[in-house]
Amino acid sequence: MAVLAVDPGARGVNEFELIKRYFARPAKRALLGVGDDCALLRPDAGLDLAVTTDMLIEGRHFLPDVEPHALGHKALAVNLSDLAAMGATPRWATLAIALPAAEPTWLAGFSAGFHALAERYGVELIGGDTTRAEARAISVTAIGEVPPGMALERSGARPGDDVWVSGELGGAALGLVHPEIAEAAKRLHVPEPRVELGERLRRLAHSAIDVSDGLAGDLGHIAERSEVQAIIEYDLVPRSKAFKSLKAPELEKDCVLSGGDDYELLFTAPRAHRAELEALGAELKLPLTRIGSIEAGAARVTVLAADRKPIAHRGGFDHFEKGQ
Amino acid sequence: MAVLAVDPGARGVNEFELIKRYFARPAKRALLGVGDDCALLRPDAGLDLAVTTDMLIEGRHFLPDVEPHALGHKALAVNLSDLAAMGATPRWATLAIALPAAEPTWLAGFSAGFHALAERYGVELIGGDTTRAEARAISVTAIGEVPPGMALERSGARPGDDVWVSGELGGAALGLVHPEIAEAAKRLHVPEPRVELGERLRRLAHSAIDVSDGLAGDLGHIAERSEVQAIIEYDLVPRSKAFKSLKAPELEKDCVLSGGDDYELLFTAPRAHRAELEALGAELKLPLTRIGSIEAGAARVTVLAADRKPIAHRGGFDHFEKGQ
Repeated sequence: MAVLAVDPGARGVNEFELIKRYFARPAKRALLGVGDDCALLRPDAGLDLAVTTDMLIEGRHFLPDVEPHALGHKALAVNLSDLAAMGATPRWATLAIALPAAEPTWLAGFSAGFHALAERYGVELIGGDTTRAEARAISVTAIGEVPPGMALERSGARPGDDVWVSGELGGAALGLVHPEIAEAAKRLHVPEPRVELGERLRRLAHSAIDVSDGLAGDLGHIAERSEVQAIIEYDLVPRSKAFKSLKAPELEKDCVLSGGDDYELLFTAPRAHRAELEALGAELKLPLTRIGSIEAGAARVTVLAADRKPIAHRGGFDHFEKGQ
Repeated sequence: MAVLAVDPGARGVNEFELIKRYFARPAKRALLGVGDDCALLRPDAGLDLAVTTDMLIEGRHFLPDVEPHALGHKALAVNLSDLAAMGATPRWATLAIALPAAEPTWLAGFSAGFHALAERYGVELIGGDTTRAEARAISVTAIGEVPPGMALERSGARPGDDVWVSGELGGAALGLVHPEIAEAAKRLHVPEPRVELGERLRRLAHSAIDVSDGLAGDLGHIAERSEVQAIIEYDLVPRSKAFKSLKAPELEKDCVLSGGDDYELLFTAPRAHRAELEALGAELKLPLTRIGSIEAGAARVTVLAADRKPIAHRGGFDHFEKGQ
């Protein structure tokens, strides 16, 4: 790989040194980090590896003027969230980034945001590629470790499971509509991957996914892969406090059920684990809320109002919506 | 990850199904492939992992009208070349791709090119991300396996080593200038990663790199990381036959010494392995040519003419050129 080097079309001592300065760190756990054709890893014997990739495109996933520290954080966070949803412990990441120019201020902010989150979870940036493009493009691949047979797959939900969600939903989507609401904007721009929760759920949950496309759509993925139906009660879904003062019930419903980018963990677990999960939430200082249950039946998601009548809502991907 | 799903901004049953159809394959060696938050791998016990990432941007690394089958091949090939330069056996890859639209013809060609190369080397596409962007962007991460201590690093060259290169150089750069020369255009658009050679060099070579930025620049990386000087004889460097009829010595020198994108392996090996390396080249039907030697001294690359006088040339990255 062009190991965090600029490509030949973007030569220049200053740019190369600049980028190297911002991203290269000495190898710690990796045998060989940034600076060769490949990074070299020695995974812990007997562990499986979880691998995930997400790409963020300027103008689609973020605006050109987004705060670079937040973007560096988010580019890694969305990948750590995928690892958490698998119950994997994050270990390594690669970063491919295309930029219109090597702007020192922007690079300093972006790399500081990326590294701050990486260090918090012991993630090592082992390599990558830097090139030029008119619009920024960022692709991160994250690798984590999980004990064999302990990964939380979308396909593990069973009838009788409770449906749980961590934290609060709807904040990120609200931040898109009301960027002036600081709490909501923070949820959108600086999502917190639920890494510790994912690790602890390994022996407690049957299935898990992170809420990246919206509660209904993501629960739909679990229902589809597990071949079960999921029923949730709208009033039980924990949501951003900002909705209280807004008094905009349709917007609230749309954000809470169908808004993406919250990166909370949505999981199913047997009833026998209720007390343990409540204790875990208290220990992690992260509310874990029971919002519904898994039933036998054709794959679908039903959202019930207080009067037990189904609520119409936007699903995630269209291909699934027809089943809801 | 958005497991080879389009992002929420690019919803639509047809597009999603289309992309899934072209890229998703059932998991083979992986425990879990496309379709969950992460892919799950169980690496062979006792092997190290080599990881590499390369990003290709439309308008920079390829033109909008490039043949999609060739681009699918090249996107994977440049990463397999990095694994080969490390002596690693390729195993898995993820693909993040941003496209202006889900064009069936383009996707069919791209995925066919990608999968044809992947299947040739037993590489499994385990996941990725698909999103929209005005200009295409492609980021591949490839993971390979290598026995502990056997990886070919850039830092392993020792005084007394021969410098070797596989195949021929300069063809890809010539293809940029003279796209009408079919042989050269093929080198540029459909490079062949030297996977078997990389594996076989594990116990024969001291250091290796793939020629992606040009012979002088890439040999400079070996010299720099190994803290040695490298001396090569220009006349010994194997080059594309197309140069013979062109009779353009300056262009030829520039392509052969400084042209990128050839993806041949450049390596150093002790003299004691000369006979074995010649036999290996014959076995693989891939010429391996001795082009110079490694000497003690400050890190630099010297290219000698037939009269033993140094030849001026463009190096790779500017940051290194001043040392040459």
